[in-house]
Formats: sequence, C-alpha cells, structure tokens
Amino acid sequence: MHNLFTIPLFLLLSVLLVTAQAAEPSSQQLTSPDGSIEVTVEVRDAGVYYSVQYKKQAVIQASRLGFDIQGQPQLAANLEVTDVQRNTTHQAWQQVWGERAEVVDHHNQLSISLQEREGLQRKLELVFRAFDDGIGFRYHLPQQPNLQEFAIEDELTEFALAQNYHAWWIPAYRDQRYEYQYLKSALSSIDVAHTPLTLTDDGIAIAIHEAALVDYASMTLRNVSDNHKTLKADLVPWADGTKVYAKTPLTTPWRTIQIASQAAELINSDLIVNLNEPNRLGDTSAYVKPGKYMGVWWEMHIGSKSWSPGADQGATTERVKEYIDFAAEHDIDGVLVEGWNKGWEGEWWQRKPTFIFDEPVVGFDIQAAVDYASSKGRQLVGHHETAAGIAHYEAQMERAFAYYQKLGIHSVKMGYVGTRLEGKEWHHGQFMVRHFAKVVATAAKYQVMVNAHETIKDTGLRRTYPNLMTRECVRGMEYNGGSPDTGNLPNHTVIIPFTRGLAGPTDFTPGIFNFDYQEHRPYNRVPTTLAKQLALYVTLYSPLQMAADLPENYQGHPAFQFIDDVPTDWQESRALQGEIGEFLVIARKDRHSEDWYLGATSNETPRQLSIKLDFLDAGRYQATIYRDGEQAHWRTNPEDYVIESKKVKAGQVLKLDLKPGGGAAVRLHRL
Amino acid sequence: MHNLFTIPLFLLLSVLLVTAQAAEPSSQQLTSPDGSIEVTVEVRDAGVYYSVQYKKQAVIQASRLGFDIQGQPQLAANLEVTDVQRNTTHQAWQQVWGERAEVVDHHNQLSISLQEREGLQRKLELVFRAFDDGIGFRYHLPQQPNLQEFAIEDELTEFALAQNYHAWWIPAYRDQRYEYQYLKSALSSIDVAHTPLTLTDDGIAIAIHEAALVDYASMTLRNVSDNHKTLKADLVPWADGTKVYAKTPLTTPWRTIQIASQAAELINSDLIVNLNEPNRLGDTSAYVKPGKYMGVWWEMHIGSKSWSPGADQGATTERVKEYIDFAAEHDIDGVLVEGWNKGWEGEWWQRKPTFIFDEPVVGFDIQAAVDYASSKGRQLVGHHETAAGIAHYEAQMERAFAYYQKLGIHSVKMGYVGTRLEGKEWHHGQFMVRHFAKVVATAAKYQVMVNAHETIKDTGLRRTYPNLMTRECVRGMEYNGGSPDTGNLPNHTVIIPFTRGLAGPTDFTPGIFNFDYQEHRPYNRVPTTLAKQLALYVTLYSPLQMAADLPENYQGHPAFQFIDDVPTDWQESRALQGEIGEFLVIARKDRHSEDWYLGATSNETPRQLSIKLDFLDAGRYQATIYRDGEQAHWRTNPEDYVIESKKVKAGQVLKLDLKPGGGAAVRLHRL
Repeated sequence: MHNLFTIPLFLLLSVLLVTAQAAEPSSQQLTSPDGSIEVTVEVRDAGVYYSVQYKKQAVIQASRLGFDIQGQPQLAANLEVTDVQRNTTHQAWQQVWGERAEVVDHHNQLSISLQEREGLQRKLELVFRAFDDGIGFRYHLPQQPNLQEFAIEDELTEFALAQNYHAWWIPAYRDQRYEYQYLKSALSSIDVAHTPLTLTDDGIAIAIHEAALVDYASMTLRNVSDNHKTLKADLVPWADGTKVYAKTPLTTPWRTIQIASQAAELINSDLIVNLNEPNRLGDTSAYVKPGKYMGVWWEMHIGSKSWSPGADQGATTERVKEYIDFAAEHDIDGVLVEGWNKGWEGEWWQRKPTFIFDEPVVGFDIQAAVDYASSKGRQLVGHHETAAGIAHYEAQMERAFAYYQKLGIHSVKMGYVGTRLEGKEWHHGQFMVRHFAKVVATAAKYQVMVNAHETIKDTGLRRTYPNLMTRECVRGMEYNGGSPDTGNLPNHTVIIPFTRGLAGPTDFTPGIFNFDYQEHRPYNRVPTTLAKQLALYVTLYSPLQMAADLPENYQGHPAFQFIDDVPTDWQESRALQGEIGEFLVIARKDRHSEDWYLGATSNETPRQLSIKLDFLDAGRYQATIYRDGEQAHWRTNPEDYVIESKKVKAGQVLKLDLKPGGGAAVRLHRL
Repeated sequence: MHNLFTIPLFLLLSVLLVTAQAAEPSSQQLTSPDGSIEVTVEVRDAGVYYSVQYKKQAVIQASRLGFDIQGQPQLAANLEVTDVQRNTTHQAWQQVWGERAEVVDHHNQLSISLQEREGLQRKLELVFRAFDDGIGFRYHLPQQPNLQEFAIEDELTEFALAQNYHAWWIPAYRDQRYEYQYLKSALSSIDVAHTPLTLTDDGIAIAIHEAALVDYASMTLRNVSDNHKTLKADLVPWADGTKVYAKTPLTTPWRTIQIASQAAELINSDLIVNLNEPNRLGDTSAYVKPGKYMGVWWEMHIGSKSWSPGADQGATTERVKEYIDFAAEHDIDGVLVEGWNKGWEGEWWQRKPTFIFDEPVVGFDIQAAVDYASSKGRQLVGHHETAAGIAHYEAQMERAFAYYQKLGIHSVKMGYVGTRLEGKEWHHGQFMVRHFAKVVATAAKYQVMVNAHETIKDTGLRRTYPNLMTRECVRGMEYNGGSPDTGNLPNHTVIIPFTRGLAGPTDFTPGIFNFDYQEHRPYNRVPTTLAKQLALYVTLYSPLQMAADLPENYQGHPAFQFIDDVPTDWQESRALQGEIGEFLVIARKDRHSEDWYLGATSNETPRQLSIKLDFLDAGRYQATIYRDGEQAHWRTNPEDYVIESKKVKAGQVLKLDLKPGGGAAVRLHRL
C-alpha cells in the first residue's frame, strides 16, 4: 500500500511541476562577463523569443526563433523547457596566425533544452553565449525519432532591431555574388542584405553575421515588413528551393551580434573566431605560412596581357621568372601564375569549363618555374579557376592538389567566377558550403594553403582549418582594372574593414603603384593615392598579402620598402580611430619582432589625424612615415608621396595629413 | 518639255541630298547659353545616340534613344534626318506662386526630324533643350499612317553616365510607393530607382528626372548591367505589362538632366518648371492662395485619436472649432479635417473603399464648422482619402468637388493609401497619371486647390495647373508618428531637398513642437530639435505649409511666432550652402514684403555655419534668430531653444551653431 500510494503521488507531482512550468512563460537571463550585454530568452506558448540589451538599452527586441521543417508542423511553439545549463569559459588560445597571437575567449553560456509538449514531441536545444563584444546563439537538434533526415524550409530566426539604425550593407541574391560597393541607408530601406551587416547610431555599433558555417546555408537578412526594422534570417536556398538538407544531430552556425560603443571597436572583436572550433589540422607549420606574394594577374585585368594562350599570353616561363627575380630581391615569398593551366582559351567564363588542373599551357614550363623559384628561395603560388563548374573541378581536385604537392607548391588561389554554380546554384547556399569544405580538406591533405575568390563568405573557419588563409568575397582591386563601371569609389576601402572585414581576412590585393594604365581601360582608375595603397597593407587584414602591381611598376619607388617590411602575421592589432566610409587608423605589432606598423586611410575628404602612440611598448622607435605629398590627390596626382623618418616613443602624438583619397603608412621600428 | 524636264531633276536632287545625308552619320551639337553644357546627338545606322558634356567633361556618354512598339519592329535604327531646326528662347515668366516670382527661361533648342529609311517609314522627332542648369529632351511622334493607335512596350532611352558617381536614391517598385528613406551608394549599386536620382562627385552634381509627365508612364531608372553605370528608362507598366497606351501625335515627357558644380545649386534650378507648359487655367486668384494650415491628423498618427467614428473620433465639430480658434489667433489660413466623411470605420485601408465624399460622419457638423471658420476669417481644408480605390472615387469625384465649392472650401488634401491602385496598378503608371489629371481638372472646375498624398510624382505640372499646389510623395512627418520602424532618421530632411525636392513642392508637414508623444507610440520620435522644425519651413518648399502639431502643443511657445511670420510664397529663393545628407542653408525673400527668411538644418552632426548675408538688399534688417539651445540634442533635449534678436545688414556674416539633429530659423525683417 505504501509503495503503491507513493509512486503515483510522485508521478502526479512531476506532472504538476511540468504543467506549472509550461503554464507560465519561462524567462532566462544571460549576462556578459562585464555586464554590458544582457540576453533574455523567453519560452512562451506562442514561441521562443530572445532579446538583447547593451548598457541597459534595447538592441534586439523580442525576436522569434525556430524552424519550418518540410512535411512537418512548424518547430517553434508549444515547447517546454526540459533543461537549463549554464557555464562560464575564460581561456586564452593561440592562433596559428592572425590579427593577434593570443585570443581571449571569455563568455557566459546558457543552454536551454526544449521539447514539444504534444504531437511529434521534437527536441530543440538553444545555446547562447554572451561575450563583452557581442553574443552568439545557435540551434542544436539532437538525434530523435521524429526528426532524422529532413529538409529545412525556413529558419525563423529574427533580429527585431530596437532602432532604425544607419545600415551599411550589400544586397544579396545578385549576380555579382558578394562583390558590391556598400549601400548606406536607414535599416528600414534594406530589402535583403548579406552579412556582416553593420549598423550604427550615436554611441553604438552593431554587426550581424554568423560563425562556423558548416554544412548549412548562408544566412542573409530580409526586412520582413517593407517598412520595418525586423530582419529575418533568409537562408540562401538550393536551386530546388530547399534551404538546408540535414539530419540529426544538427548544429547550426552561430548567429552573431557584435556590439561596441563605436564602429572601430567592432574591428577589434574576436567573437567570430571565438565561436569556431579549435584547430583540427594539428601542426601545420610545414606549409601554413603567412606571407606576401605577387604574380601574373594585373596585366590581364588592365588588358595588356591575356589569360588566353597565344601572343598575349600572360603566363609564360620568361615572365614568371621576371616576377621571381623581383620577389627574390625583396621580401616576397610567392609568385602566382594565373592562366598557367590548360582551358583558358577565349571567353572561358561564358562556357562549360574546360580547365585541366595539372597540365600547363604551351609556353609555360611549370617545372622550370618551380625550380627557378626554388633556386631563389621563393615558391610558386598555384591557381585553380573553376568558372563555377563544380563537378568538373571536383573530378580533378584530388589529382590537382597532389600535383601541387609533388611540385612543392603549398599555396593556391582559387576562383569561382560565374553567376551561379553549375549554372543554377547560388554561391552562398549549402551546395557551395559543402563543396568548399571538401576543397579545404583536400588542400590540407596535400599540404596546400587556400586563398579563394568568389567562394562562400567567411565565418571564421580559419580557426578550425588554419590552411584556409584568406579569401576575396569583396569587390577587390580587380574592379579597378577592367570593370565596366570605372571601379571602386574612394570610400570603399574605408567601408570594408567595418563590414566585410569583420568576417575575416580579405584578399583585396593592394599595392598598385602605377596609376597610368588606361591604355586598354580608359575609364578605370585606382581611387587612392600611392601612400594609401601602402596603408591598406595594415588596414585590410590578410595573412597572405599581394603586391598586386607589375614588377616594373615598382622600380624606382623607394616606397616599395614599406611592402618589403610590412609583416602579414601579427602579435597584436588595434583599430584606433575610424568612422565608416570616412577614415580608419589601425596599428598592428609584428608577430616576429618588436616593431609596430600603422595604417591610416581616408575617403575623398582630406583630413588631419592626431594619433596618440599609446599602443607602443616602452622604449624608442624609429618611425618611417610614408605619407601623401602636398599635392597628392587620388584623381589628379596619386603618385605624390613623401617618406619621412623620425624618432618617437609611447605617449607621443603622431600627426598625419591625409590628402583626398589618401593615406599614410608608418613603420615603427623598435630601437 | 521645260516643265517636264525640270520637275524630275529637282526631285532627283532632293533624293540625292537625302541619301548623302543618310550615308554618313549625322552629328548635331547643342550648347547651353553660357557654353557650360554641350549636347551631341548622333544619328548612326545602328541607332540614335545623345551625349552630354559639362565644362568639357563627359557626363553622359553616347546613350541610346528610341522605342519598342507592340507588334512593330523597334523604332530606333535605320533612321534618316529629314529636318533640323534650331532656336533660342530668352524670356522671363511670372509664376502664379513659387520659389520665385519671376522665372528666367533661357535655352537653346535643337529639333531633329527623323524617318525610317525603309519598312514602315515611321517618323520620329527629337527635341533637345540646353539650359545653363541642365538639359531636357523629349520624343515627338507625329500623326502618320503606320503609327496611329499603339502600345509602347519599352522606351529605350539610356543615361550612360561617365563616372561611377555617388548616388542618392529610393528604390522603385516597392509597396510603400515613393516613401522611403534615401540610400546612398555607388551608382553601380543601384538596381532600379525612382527619379529624381541625384548623383555627385568632386565639382559636379547631377539630377535625372522628368518634366511634364502627361498621359504617359513615370520613368524609373534601371541599371541595365548588374555591374554597370548605364541607367535605362524603365517605364512603370500597367498591370497588363504594357508601358504606355498612346496615339499619335504623341509628345513624351521631357527627360531632364540637371547639372551644377555643387549639390546646393541643383536646388536653385528652375529647369523642371521651365520645361512645363504655361498656365492653362488663366486667372486663379479667386481660390489659388498659398498659405498655412493646421488640422485634425497628428492626433490620429500618434494614436491619441482615431479616424474611425466613435469614442476616439478625431473629427468632431468641437475639436475642429478649437483648431479654428487657434488658427484665428495666428496667421494660419486653413483647418484640415481628416476623417470628417463617412467610410472611415475600422481598418479602412484593408478593405474595398466605402468612403462617401459628401456626407459628414456623425459628430461632425461640416456646415457649422465652415460657418465658424468663416466667422473667424478662416477656411476649412477638405479631405479625400481614396484608399487607392480609383473607380469608387471617380464615381463620386464631380459631386465631391461640387460639394466643397458649395461649402466655400477651396483646398483639399487627398490620399491614395494602398500598395496598388484598384488592387493592381502601380501608383506611378499611366493609370495614375490619367486619373490624377482628371482630379486636377475637376478640382479647377470647382475652384479647389489640390494637395495630394501617395500620388504620381511631381514633374512640374504646377506651372500649367496652378491649382496643383503641393504633394507628399515623400516619407513625411507621418512616419515619425506611427510607423513601425521608429520614423525617419535625422539626416532625412537634409537629403530630401536635394532629391525629392527637386521635383517640386513637398507637403512634408513640419512644425512638431511636442516631442513627448510616446504614450501610444513608444518607439517613435521626431528626429530633430524644435529649432530645426522651424527651419524646415524654409528648407522644404511648399506653397501650402502645415503647422502639424496640436494647438495645445503650441501653447506657451514663443517659437510659434516664426510659424506665424514665415510666408509660403516667395519673391526669390537661394540655396546658399549644403551637402547632401549633411546640412543645408536656404534663404528666401517674402513675395509680399521686403523680409528675408533663412533656414539652416543639420543631420546628427553638430556644426557651426558662417553665412554671408550677401543676399540681403541694401538697408538694415532686424534678425530674429530661433536657434538650438546649448543643451539641445534631437534625442535627449529637442525642446531646448533660444530666440535672439539683433540688427544686421548685407555683407555681414551670421554665425549659427547647430546642435545634433538641430537647425536654426531666422526672420530678417527689413527696417
């Protein structure tokens, strides 16, 4: 009797407790370590909502979470909390390479396990992390009987922004992929934008993006009301309309919201890499080496040479040897050869790809080039242009990377030129995510570093795969070569570090010294001064930096010394001052010496900057300042520059005078 | 014999001449009176192209002209020049009302008559006018056998811009019609934009728009290559896809390109009205009277009253009498009553319209209100909200205007709220152009001035129909009342005079003095200081200006004196300084006194302006300056203002200190 009585009572109590929990909404709070950021997660009958405050001000108002699953009811409402877990992480980890050697990961985590009360009783876990520089959250769908293999029709995640912020964005779902100049508008004027999307207002800067995009679709942000400030996750679909093909257990990418009191601070955030998994490749020191490269490419963009074999062919053994000679005289590690392999004839971007990735074109002896480079202590940089033909590439990929390994080539630049992959898939859908994961893994297997153009956007996977060095995914220097619209505006390079750059390294390819290349490109120009070209090596971060111009264009330019000197791997980095679209000053400390480097860039507006050198360590420094000359102007006189040298120390103020479209680059050599 | 011989010879010579002309491309030049602007029109075998230079710099490169006609070959190529005419006009004309009393029209004109060499032998005439502030061109299709009644499938007009300018634009083909905050981007990032589209670069500002849009479709501008700087006319289609239903003789609207050395100068251009036909209404002095009005509307937008009949009804006889009392104590001519007529119950914008335009709602005695207004020397302002139901409105329109005339109401505000007209037509297609022409004509017949919201964009028809006073067609003050996205950003009002304002008068409805209206609108705010609200009466031109706030909110505010004083009809207007999105200073001289008024407005950025008073006439002026107080800030302290008085004269410099989101309004009273 005793047992028979007590057991049902215990069960009854459990049911009552669960019912009580379900009847009133559950609200969980999560606070960042310094308390500046607060997240609230509410589980109501109607759905699950999160909201975010920064310094007690609303940033994200109650915003919906959940999924539409194909052939099933929506997974969003009527959920009960089955478990709540909290923990705190405070650790420092070493980056193989990066903006800083040591990254601090200090966050509080809240995990909420949910289960549907009725019907399919599906399980869903939400994980939120609050850092002092923003938050991340992701969904986890554990293995479960009623959710095994499935298709995601829609992710319901919303970002109900509290203010109609100023927004800096590029449009999604357009043919040029990610390669647009940025629009500035009210948040409410966005239709659908790629991430990172950067938002500003007095005293606050916000960037919405994602981290660890692995086997899922890229998130774009759609204004869900034509007149509203709520953005909804709009996953880039497959050609068949499905957003994501999945099976449990599924962990989505982190949805990230970086928050700072001013835009330049966003650049100092490590949130994206902190939300990626640690290095899975182990010791990559044999082949993963940040560095500088140059190569055969700009002469094709400005029309003096061609990717096609024949009389105008850019990729010839002789020409490549000229590049190698120059590289060897300077601190340039690699020489890229675009158009070296078979398949570049004519309008290669207009047809089904015919590239052969392990056969050099007539006129280019790859073994001779490799040997010559090696004799000079340099390396060739390989090139895989796919023209968006994925099947054609994947069929050769293993062989192609093996070929490079055999030749001793440890670096490849890749391209996916085309409006759709395989003529139908967006560059930002799960199709590309899966393909590019294969590329990175295959490259690692054959000890090759990857620098990819026109690929999926960066979400910090470089932490997990340190051979994934850099990527374009930006309207880069090439648009100043042969684009039909004259090229990028002068403000472009003072927008992208605050937007695209938040995602990760950018292979923008700075370093154009010759502004007089209009013979075949009468309407194009590089919209900076020469001094600003140098500054870009500091303000646009990439572990592989190109010296993009032709060797002959660097001759006689003492300013090339800065490119010789500037490192590509950093002990520390600090964005010091800046306003989006206006100007930016960044200082970085070399990872392998005591020297600091500083880059300052402006848009069309000339400006005088006072930079407090309080980032310097104790001791004296020899400052070599590469600045705009008195008459410098991006349009009329870009090559007017001055090199000055003086001694400085911490705490002093460095004054820099930037001309229209100008900049300054400073080497601070520790004495 | 003699006669028989000479006649064929004469004919033969004519044919030879014409053939000779057709064989080589014809190029015609047109220059503006001061020579700064040059137009070249080339008739080549492949088509007809125009280009534009400003101060010897290319602005528009060779750009295509022509039409796609339904069921016929393209009318664009294989044309021969049959006649070329030139003339010069230099005249001054009086505006019934406007930014200035006298407008100078000084232009050179080039008319080129063309005919197809073969096939249908259709005729087409091109007319170009070059002014010192820009150009206009239009097509004329004369009556002809092979082109009688026809449908235009596409207008081929292109604007091949020479540079990738900075662009300020609103997107076309969106549900909120014309009511967006502006986007700033590179020209190349535009997809499809409404006009006026404003473009800037160092030393040049350009606005592309149209003039005299009569029985045609509105022109939007589409980037014809995703990566390009050539915009193509994209006529807003009917629901059936046709762009324009036409018959010959057809004269298209003028395609206009205003050009100046700086953006503020665009505001001083009279090009749009100069390209419209003279007054067709004759003497309208009996009822066309610029002036100020207030009325029952803002209390609905901020949610304290309702358009619906019942307990919260805004339109009551008693309330309207309060407005009339206030108006009578001040220099406010009219009192608007929104929601006065039957049909406003509930969510009127969601259903087929039920409005009755000549029956007042219970609780509002229109005759009593009219009589009371009359006894105080004021007028009621009528209101026609159509909810985009055109047939429903047109069935009552004649009766509705007659009703107003009978009551002595000479002013109506109209609305076309809805995403499509009749549930299917865009607000900017030929359907709306035709409807609105009927409205303006009917209003004139019954001696009523028109102030239209959500209607077709302005193209200067006010010159031809002086009862067409003003229109909204902008994201106006109402968005600061109840919009879901918090409202307009502070920079909005320093963008629209450089963009939307170039089209014509704007019923933005400034004058909010009470910033504490968040009881029902917790997320909305007016994004200016109070002093900036005053400045908007000068910087945003409209012949009918509203004092938009509630009478009780003006009580105790000496600043209302500026609204009392400020005229709405001007002898002269001059934009003195400004940068789009940053700040603007405009001075205007009263048409009926010797007084000048000045408005200065800023975006979020505080700034100090030095304004040379060289626009003043000889003599001394009493300056009354309504400026931001020391602690003024649009967000935290908008009502902090100072009124100062001092004597000034021409040539002196007036210094104004604008706070964040602030402004200054100055009355300069001639002593």
